[in-house]
Amino acid sequence: MDTASENKCFGGTQGVYTHASSACGCEMTFGLFLPAEAQDGPVPLLWYLSGLTCTHENAMTKAGAQAWAAEHGIALVFPDTSPRGEDVADDEAYDLGKGAGFYVNATQAPWAPHFRMWDYVAEELPALLGERFALDMERQAITGHSMGGHGALTLAMGLPGRFCSVSAFSPIAHPTQSDWGRKQLGAYLGEDHATWATHDATLLMRETGFDGPILIDQGSDDQFLELLKPEALAEAMAARRQEGSFRMQRGYDHSYFFVSSFMEDHVAFHADALYAK
Amino acid sequence: MDTASENKCFGGTQGVYTHASSACGCEMTFGLFLPAEAQDGPVPLLWYLSGLTCTHENAMTKAGAQAWAAEHGIALVFPDTSPRGEDVADDEAYDLGKGAGFYVNATQAPWAPHFRMWDYVAEELPALLGERFALDMERQAITGHSMGGHGALTLAMGLPGRFCSVSAFSPIAHPTQSDWGRKQLGAYLGEDHATWATHDATLLMRETGFDGPILIDQGSDDQFLELLKPEALAEAMAARRQEGSFRMQRGYDHSYFFVSSFMEDHVAFHADALYAK
Repeated sequence: MDTASENKCFGGTQGVYTHASSACGCEMTFGLFLPAEAQDGPVPLLWYLSGLTCTHENAMTKAGAQAWAAEHGIALVFPDTSPRGEDVADDEAYDLGKGAGFYVNATQAPWAPHFRMWDYVAEELPALLGERFALDMERQAITGHSMGGHGALTLAMGLPGRFCSVSAFSPIAHPTQSDWGRKQLGAYLGEDHATWATHDATLLMRETGFDGPILIDQGSDDQFLELLKPEALAEAMAARRQEGSFRMQRGYDHSYFFVSSFMEDHVAFHADALYAK
Repeated sequence: MDTASENKCFGGTQGVYTHASSACGCEMTFGLFLPAEAQDGPVPLLWYLSGLTCTHENAMTKAGAQAWAAEHGIALVFPDTSPRGEDVADDEAYDLGKGAGFYVNATQAPWAPHFRMWDYVAEELPALLGERFALDMERQAITGHSMGGHGALTLAMGLPGRFCSVSAFSPIAHPTQSDWGRKQLGAYLGEDHATWATHDATLLMRETGFDGPILIDQGSDDQFLELLKPEALAEAMAARRQEGSFRMQRGYDHSYFFVSSFMEDHVAFHADALYAK
C-alpha cells in the first residue's frame, strides 16, 4: 500500500492510498479520513460509496463529511467506484464500465476479470483497512449516494451483522425495474435474475430487511427520480416495518449540494448506532 | 361557551370548555392549552385529533404535548372525537358511533343528525376559537393519533392553505381498504365511494398531496398495523415526491407511550413550519 497524499483536516488526517487489489486485478485508490481520536486507539468506521462517474475523490472533497465525522470521532472511507487501468474493459456510456461498477461481482465477458466491486468493498478493502489503520472493525456503518446508495443498501442487507446502520442519499432503489440497473446487471451478471435480486434494495427489503436503523434522504426535485424509484423502497420499508426514516426533501436535486446539506444528519444517525453497540 | 376548568400548566393555562355546537347539534367539550405568550397577543395553534374511544381528555393528559408547546409558544386544541349526549345515536361496537366520528359529515341514518365532525373541526370550532382566544388563525398546524391521524391528514389535504404543516402518529392511512374505515365510511356516508375517497389519506396523497411538510411516525410493534396500512401511505408520499418524513420507530406500539415519546419532535416540526410563515 502506498500513500498518495495525507492532509491535516478537522484535527485529523485525510489520506489517499493506493494498493494492488487482488479482487479487481488492478491498482485501486481509496480515501480515508481518520479523526484525531484514531491516534489514541481504534475508532468506528463509516463507509461512503459513490455514484456513477465518481472516483474515491468526489465525496472526499464535496460532501463535507469530515467535519461531522471529526465531531463524532468516526473514520470515513471513500472507495473508488470501479476497477481502473488501461487493461480494464470499458464502455462509451457513462453508466457502464469504469466509474459504474454497481458493487457487484461480474460473471460476464468482458467484465468478469476486473469488475468485482462487491468482493473489493465487502472483503478485500475491509481486511486491508483493519490491518493498516486504527479502526474498530466491529463498529462499521455504511452510506452512499445514487449508485453508491444502492451499494450501501445491498451490502448492508447482504452482509447481516456487518453494519450497525445504513443510510443513503437518493439511492438507486429498485435497479431490477430501472434503466439504471437492468442494463448493468444484464451486462455484468447475464440473465441470472436470481442474482440480480440480491443486488436490488427493494427486493432485499421485501425479502429480509436490515437488522438495524435505516435513513433515506431523497430530493423531491431530483432529475433522476424515474430511474431511482424511491417509492418502491419506501413502500417496502413500511410494509416490512423496517426501523428507519424515509425523508423527501423538498426542492433538492441529485447533486452534492443535496448530499452535503444532509450529511450532518447522516453522520449523527450513524454515530448513534455505532456508539450504541 | 362555558369554562369547565382551567389549570396553570407549563407557565400557561390548560383549559376545558363546553359550548352548544350547531354542527353536531349537541353540547361539545374541548381542551385548549394557551402558552404564557398568549397573554401578550395571538399565538399559533396546533390541532390534536384523537383516536377511537377517546374524548378531548386523553391527549390532554397523556401525550405530554404542553411541555413542548410551551417551549415554542404554541397553543394546542384537543377536540372531542364525536358528538355526545343521550339523544345521539350509538352502536355497541367501540369503533362506530360515539367516540368514533371519523371526522366526516354523516349523510346516513341514524348518524346524519349529529355526526358532523368534519364541519365541527373544519368550521365551527375554528370560528369559536378565533373569536374567543388569543390565537393567530393564520398560523395553524394539525396532528393526531390513529383515527385522529386520519383526520389530521384528510383535513390538511382537504382544506388547502389552512394548515402550514401536518403530522400523524400511527394514522389510519388507507381507510377505504381497511376494516377501520370501510365499516364506518359505509355507515356514515353510504355507498358513495367518491365521497369515501375524500376521507382516505392515501387516495388524497395520490390525487393531490399536501402543500407543506408532513411527518408520520409509526411504531413497528403496533398491534393494529394490518388495519392502519402505513405502507400504502409511505408509497404514495414517495411517489408524489411529497415533502416529508415517514419514520418507522422500532419496538413502539399503538399507545400513548408511543405518542408521548415522539411528541417533542412533532411539536418542533410544526413550530418550524408555523414560524416560517
